[in-house]
Amino acid sequence: MAKDAIPASIAVDAMGGDKGPSEIIAGVSLALKELSRTDKVLLIGDTTLLEPLIEEEGLARDNRVSLLHASQTISMDEKPIQSIRRKKDSSMVRAIESVREGRAKALLSCGNTGSLMAGSTLKLRPLEGLERPALATVIPTAKRYFILIDAGANTGPSPSHFVHNAILGAHYAKTILKLSQPRVGLLSIGTEEGKGTDLIHHAHQSLKKVDGLINYTGLIEGFHVFSDQVDVILCDGFVGNIVLKVCESLVVNIIEYLKDELSKSPLRKAGALLTRGAFKTIRSRLNPERYGGAPLLGLSATVFKAHGSSNRYAIRSAVQMGLEAARCYRSEDIITVIKEANRLIKDHTVP
Amino acid sequence: MAKDAIPASIAVDAMGGDKGPSEIIAGVSLALKELSRTDKVLLIGDTTLLEPLIEEEGLARDNRVSLLHASQTISMDEKPIQSIRRKKDSSMVRAIESVREGRAKALLSCGNTGSLMAGSTLKLRPLEGLERPALATVIPTAKRYFILIDAGANTGPSPSHFVHNAILGAHYAKTILKLSQPRVGLLSIGTEEGKGTDLIHHAHQSLKKVDGLINYTGLIEGFHVFSDQVDVILCDGFVGNIVLKVCESLVVNIIEYLKDELSKSPLRKAGALLTRGAFKTIRSRLNPERYGGAPLLGLSATVFKAHGSSNRYAIRSAVQMGLEAARCYRSEDIITVIKEANRLIKDHTVP
Repeated sequence: MAKDAIPASIAVDAMGGDKGPSEIIAGVSLALKELSRTDKVLLIGDTTLLEPLIEEEGLARDNRVSLLHASQTISMDEKPIQSIRRKKDSSMVRAIESVREGRAKALLSCGNTGSLMAGSTLKLRPLEGLERPALATVIPTAKRYFILIDAGANTGPSPSHFVHNAILGAHYAKTILKLSQPRVGLLSIGTEEGKGTDLIHHAHQSLKKVDGLINYTGLIEGFHVFSDQVDVILCDGFVGNIVLKVCESLVVNIIEYLKDELSKSPLRKAGALLTRGAFKTIRSRLNPERYGGAPLLGLSATVFKAHGSSNRYAIRSAVQMGLEAARCYRSEDIITVIKEANRLIKDHTVP
Repeated sequence: MAKDAIPASIAVDAMGGDKGPSEIIAGVSLALKELSRTDKVLLIGDTTLLEPLIEEEGLARDNRVSLLHASQTISMDEKPIQSIRRKKDSSMVRAIESVREGRAKALLSCGNTGSLMAGSTLKLRPLEGLERPALATVIPTAKRYFILIDAGANTGPSPSHFVHNAILGAHYAKTILKLSQPRVGLLSIGTEEGKGTDLIHHAHQSLKKVDGLINYTGLIEGFHVFSDQVDVILCDGFVGNIVLKVCESLVVNIIEYLKDELSKSPLRKAGALLTRGAFKTIRSRLNPERYGGAPLLGLSATVFKAHGSSNRYAIRSAVQMGLEAARCYRSEDIITVIKEANRLIKDHTVP
């Protein structure tokens, strides 16, 4: 992150997360070490718990950090809408409201995903012309990164949601991956038109109509996901959530398998020592902690959801990404493109 | 493969496949080296092309091999039903018919997937009580194998199709993975009831009704796919096809990444030499060539689809797997269970 960047601010729900507030404060502290002097972090939660932690981390006199009290916490198993309505003084609700009131430009929570999506959608509202937000996620390949959208916000999308997500994903790719013309592909089971489901067929037709607004390269299949053919991969939230988690599961499995195999003989152990650097690079690159947050895009501010199990390094990345996203967020640009896209697909029968 | 196993026979479409008939004959030749003296392979295709290849591979006097002439070939880009109807003397149609006529118990083709599915379904018919076949695939983890079904045959399934696929997948797991009580899970985006789509919810309810017939362990999510929690993973054909191809894409990407990293310094190169055995084991295990065929289950005979790009080693595995599946295939057992399952889910509203 550039030290002289445009100032940005992030509200952090300090109570969500399986490892408790101390891990979150530690992550924020790591992030602040690399942030500009003008960036701001607003920590939200039970101040009797947070104050000693802030003191411990040496942040008590850091004027970039401020604190907002919230007496309640939403737990992982609470029902989304109910939890948001009932726990008005929860750290999550207070964090969302602080963004709505303009006290911060972005939000980060490791708490209950359903509650965060419901609360953000209700209180921050989708941008003009959009019906729903979408969850995006940055995934590394050996040489590049790509963005998968939707990773689980909306499991019953319409073709127009794919168009909206294409615009949101492309904007995010420009912001975070610094690509000037991100290539957008639609994930299906073959690249020939007519293959796949009716929904995919209609989404593809709609996307072709807005090709002037985004760089839509057409249908892709699973083989192309890690082959650097596109920068933004569109899919419905059901497929996206499964793909994302299956990939994490496979990476964990391969790394364990490698460890097992490399410890099977003294010769291999020696070889493993010499190649340690290679494995460190790969593990660090494939490590989900580096991409600690998945943004919920399409709202009046960028909302980051981090894994419940995030450790301090994941929190650090998420805080940094959140601030970078906030810095580059131009909701008026997105609204203009969405409006034009809605006009272009209106003539086209969208079921 | 046991040398004294029950005799079995397989019809091989020798013309399909991107590498041409010579690669297929070479694969069959490799398979025959490890097969019983009573197994049979029926090669189907243009005999003027095949006879010299069979001579070259030293199979001309192997009485386990026989030859059937077919003057046409269905290419990869032909339309499924049209190609089957128009090319009556194609190697694929002749192969399907030879199975229907009882000349072989299983079938293998690397040709056009759509044509193979359409032709097999039309000519071999789904088993009594079933509406459609399903494509299964065996996927390795570090320690075990699991079966993914449906890997792409049916992209618009009903809840009862999930029940049927559970029975087909469990039967195949018993046959090929030699498991006595394979654990069956339904792939969704969370393990709590109510998460996921309506289709998943209804399929889950139906599967619970037939829990006595199969070992249904409930909903799983993407994280569980490679963590050895279940032996048979149920999903619709759209999701299955994507998951399968994304995993292949990720494995290829990680292996390339490893190669790159391991050649970056002389020290790493030396280490890579010492650890070569470990990588060989892993690559060989994760190599799709070892599981050369994906069976189309639920027909009156087992039909294996191999990748168009299959090399001789993939063909060898597919021939061996096909014969093993044919050896253990008890359609009457499957029909009995399907009948009972249909009775159990009948009371349940299946939309």
